[in-house]
Amino acid sequence: MRHLLDTVHLSREDAIRILDVAETMSDVSGREVKKLPALRGRTVVNLFFEDSTRTRISFEAAAKRLSADVINFSAKGSSVSKGESLKDTAQTLQAIGADAVVIRHPASGAAQRLARTDWIDAAIVNAGDGTHAHPTQALLDALTLRRELAARAGVDPTGRGLDGARVVIVGDVLHSRVARSDVWLMHTLGARVTLVAPPTLLPVGVETWPCDVEYNLDAALATGPDAVMMLRVQAERMHGAFFPSVAEYSRRWGLNEHRLGLLTPEAIIMHPGPMNRGLEISAAAADSPRSRVLAQVANGVAVRMAVLYLVLSGAPSTEGA
Amino acid sequence: MRHLLDTVHLSREDAIRILDVAETMSDVSGREVKKLPALRGRTVVNLFFEDSTRTRISFEAAAKRLSADVINFSAKGSSVSKGESLKDTAQTLQAIGADAVVIRHPASGAAQRLARTDWIDAAIVNAGDGTHAHPTQALLDALTLRRELAARAGVDPTGRGLDGARVVIVGDVLHSRVARSDVWLMHTLGARVTLVAPPTLLPVGVETWPCDVEYNLDAALATGPDAVMMLRVQAERMHGAFFPSVAEYSRRWGLNEHRLGLLTPEAIIMHPGPMNRGLEISAAAADSPRSRVLAQVANGVAVRMAVLYLVLSGAPSTEGA
Amino acid sequence: MRHLLDTVHLSREDAIRILDVAETMSDVSGREVKKLPALRGRTVVNLFFEDSTRTRISFEAAAKRLSADVINFSAKGSSVSKGESLKDTAQTLQAIGADAVVIRHPASGAAQRLARTDWIDAAIVNAGDGTHAHPTQALLDALTLRRELAARAGVDPTGRGLDGARVVIVGDVLHSRVARSDVWLMHTLGARVTLVAPPTLLPVGVETWPCDVEYNLDAALATGPDAVMMLRVQAERMHGAFFPSVAEYSRRWGLNEHRLGLLTPEAIIMHPGPMNRGLEISAAAADSPRSRVLAQVANGVAVRMAVLYLVLSGAPSTEGA
Repeated sequence: MRHLLDTVHLSREDAIRILDVAETMSDVSGREVKKLPALRGRTVVNLFFEDSTRTRISFEAAAKRLSADVINFSAKGSSVSKGESLKDTAQTLQAIGADAVVIRHPASGAAQRLARTDWIDAAIVNAGDGTHAHPTQALLDALTLRRELAARAGVDPTGRGLDGARVVIVGDVLHSRVARSDVWLMHTLGARVTLVAPPTLLPVGVETWPCDVEYNLDAALATGPDAVMMLRVQAERMHGAFFPSVAEYSRRWGLNEHRLGLLTPEAIIMHPGPMNRGLEISAAAADSPRSRVLAQVANGVAVRMAVLYLVLSGAPSTEGA
Repeated sequence: MRHLLDTVHLSREDAIRILDVAETMSDVSGREVKKLPALRGRTVVNLFFEDSTRTRISFEAAAKRLSADVINFSAKGSSVSKGESLKDTAQTLQAIGADAVVIRHPASGAAQRLARTDWIDAAIVNAGDGTHAHPTQALLDALTLRRELAARAGVDPTGRGLDGARVVIVGDVLHSRVARSDVWLMHTLGARVTLVAPPTLLPVGVETWPCDVEYNLDAALATGPDAVMMLRVQAERMHGAFFPSVAEYSRRWGLNEHRLGLLTPEAIIMHPGPMNRGLEISAAAADSPRSRVLAQVANGVAVRMAVLYLVLSGAPSTEGA
Repeated sequence: MRHLLDTVHLSREDAIRILDVAETMSDVSGREVKKLPALRGRTVVNLFFEDSTRTRISFEAAAKRLSADVINFSAKGSSVSKGESLKDTAQTLQAIGADAVVIRHPASGAAQRLARTDWIDAAIVNAGDGTHAHPTQALLDALTLRRELAARAGVDPTGRGLDGARVVIVGDVLHSRVARSDVWLMHTLGARVTLVAPPTLLPVGVETWPCDVEYNLDAALATGPDAVMMLRVQAERMHGAFFPSVAEYSRRWGLNEHRLGLLTPEAIIMHPGPMNRGLEISAAAADSPRSRVLAQVANGVAVRMAVLYLVLSGAPSTEGA
């Protein structure tokens, strides 16, 4: 695998390989093993054009646990921005010898641009670009769900997809790179995804996505999904034309106590974090034994270790991406 | 020792143990020995909700000299703040596998809250919380004074407290977490502390603290203390109701040339830094051979190495804290 | 070599030694070799009073590739600034055990002040001070040009200077620490430098510098230089009394297509970056095969590795500096 840019172009084989390597990394990400020498001498640059402390420290912990050197490059507010200067920044990172660049950028497609030009030879890992993609988030979601399903079935998760699983994703799909990446990855892995959202918060063209769309959350929950993923509401969007009021949103699309009661006993709750308790998710749901929110964060380190390891070890991919 | 939260609950035995380990670390903190492998593979997160470059780099140098991986997390100005989100931040750090969290926070009690909830298993080290506590500062002050007393007596400092020493602490006690932590630690170690401050800058309840209070600095210095510790005046407080004018403050509570002459030949001067020369301390006092300000900074690295080593090595404590 | 402060006081022997060590570092800076243990256990502090992500990450990559511990200290906007507090900052870094301090400061002379006081024992490396000096930039320029000349002559660059080379430096010399450092270093190494600038952008006393001055860029290029170095125009200066309009500047002092045609076939183009394409340099010139801009960035890591290695290994210098 040379880069990780999105989940649309990630093959089932590559996705399962990442999840399987992440399983083998779990002793290290879970700290039973303290550190591996796998990436000693490699330089990983965290190139962040948007603030995201959680994602940055997850990648930083992953890289350091594999003994890589990490250089943090916070480009927000600095002279570097879009277009020409993304090129100059990339070439600078190339020239200082970056082996992998983890990029977070407000413009959709920024990671692709880095990977598909000849500006830089480094492996590119997309850590979120605009409303486009956030593939490591989708992979950690898949890892979390796969473990759940395997534990339930009493089998080893290794080598498996998510075949037959049913996932409901709820909220502001329009602005969510997480939803986009999850839909494609879960579909590739054999799960059936249902999006639930206010009509104004669904993107044009959603009918071409490999998923179902439903407007009524109660109806979606009544079908007995294996997992419900609540998307984060971004407060700065709550006054726009797209959005109902907070009270209306919470009432119609929030995971409240009533809806918690609609879930099957085995269904789990996921959220990419940080949660708005009382808005898209009630405190009772967030803290219930069904919640896998913290497992998701922990799995994030394992998935990012796996991705950094695979893109830097030069293992062949089944795809050109 | 599991955490280091304040000095009120630090036993004499634990305090002496920290100072003794700090003595053994001095070859490394003083750079005769470059690095120890003691904490290789451990992850120390510097979680700073307030800027404090000096304290952050002291902890960072201490952790790196013990071969730990360090992740800096500057939460100031980011979305994380108090209450609920401190919980979310803590759980995130837990999930990424932090072994120790060094926390600086504007709210008194923030470190305790992290340590006494089940949000996180990591060792918590308080690097200053509101006006409450700054235990590593007090420990470095104690290490500095203990060495002085031992050198004077021609004995090995190891295993000793500060029995019989007399310390005068001068200035804005009301807002000073340093003063609070010093009073309790010095008392625990057997020293007699006298606070000297304008009445408006003493906290309610100071009469229950294990120290004396004096309003006249000349009188306090005339008693022949072993050490005088000048607190930093925070300029942003100089226009409040609590404070006299700068000129008045400097005249009545500043360590000026006249007062330097009142000290016994062996008395030392301490200051937590950074100093306001000309306000609470004259340049002559700051740069005099009596000043131990730089020794305090150097001892800070040794003390922080000792604390990180002890909380992460899982050595048993004499206390529950 | 104890410090690296400027190029005015750098001897020919020391300059060539730095370039020769940089050649030996190129396998590491170019990533054929991943890492050297040379500076294991040493602490390098990047003390930046001005933002400069490019220079900071170049030094950070250089130090980490030699296995040093790096502590970043961004002093911009913090309470530390000039005069007394530079002293306090220096003494703090001394006390925490910094072995080398890489300093970037808006005030000319800041690096010298650190090196020539007794505030700190650490090796001081000037990473740019005001309009005064930026010696590692000049060294990487010299390394780039020396390699070019040696390749052209089919000889080993090691041990050589730049004897007989001709270099044209174009633009805002008045505000450029790069131009100052380049003029002195290139002269020391035997090159002949011609400055080309608007009269208002030449400093008082330039006639005492070891170089020629020319006001007509076409005339300067017609003499057949080996290298043309275009200085960056700082946009914030474009509205001052010193500066012509952007259009006028570009027309008279920009490296445009017409002027590209005046160069000899072997002449190279250099720029310290980041480039203002369309202002001091056209896109065609920036991206032409003559451009060595990316080689300069890569050589920057090698030069900074060499400098850190030499100041920290305590090798004797031919100069007191």
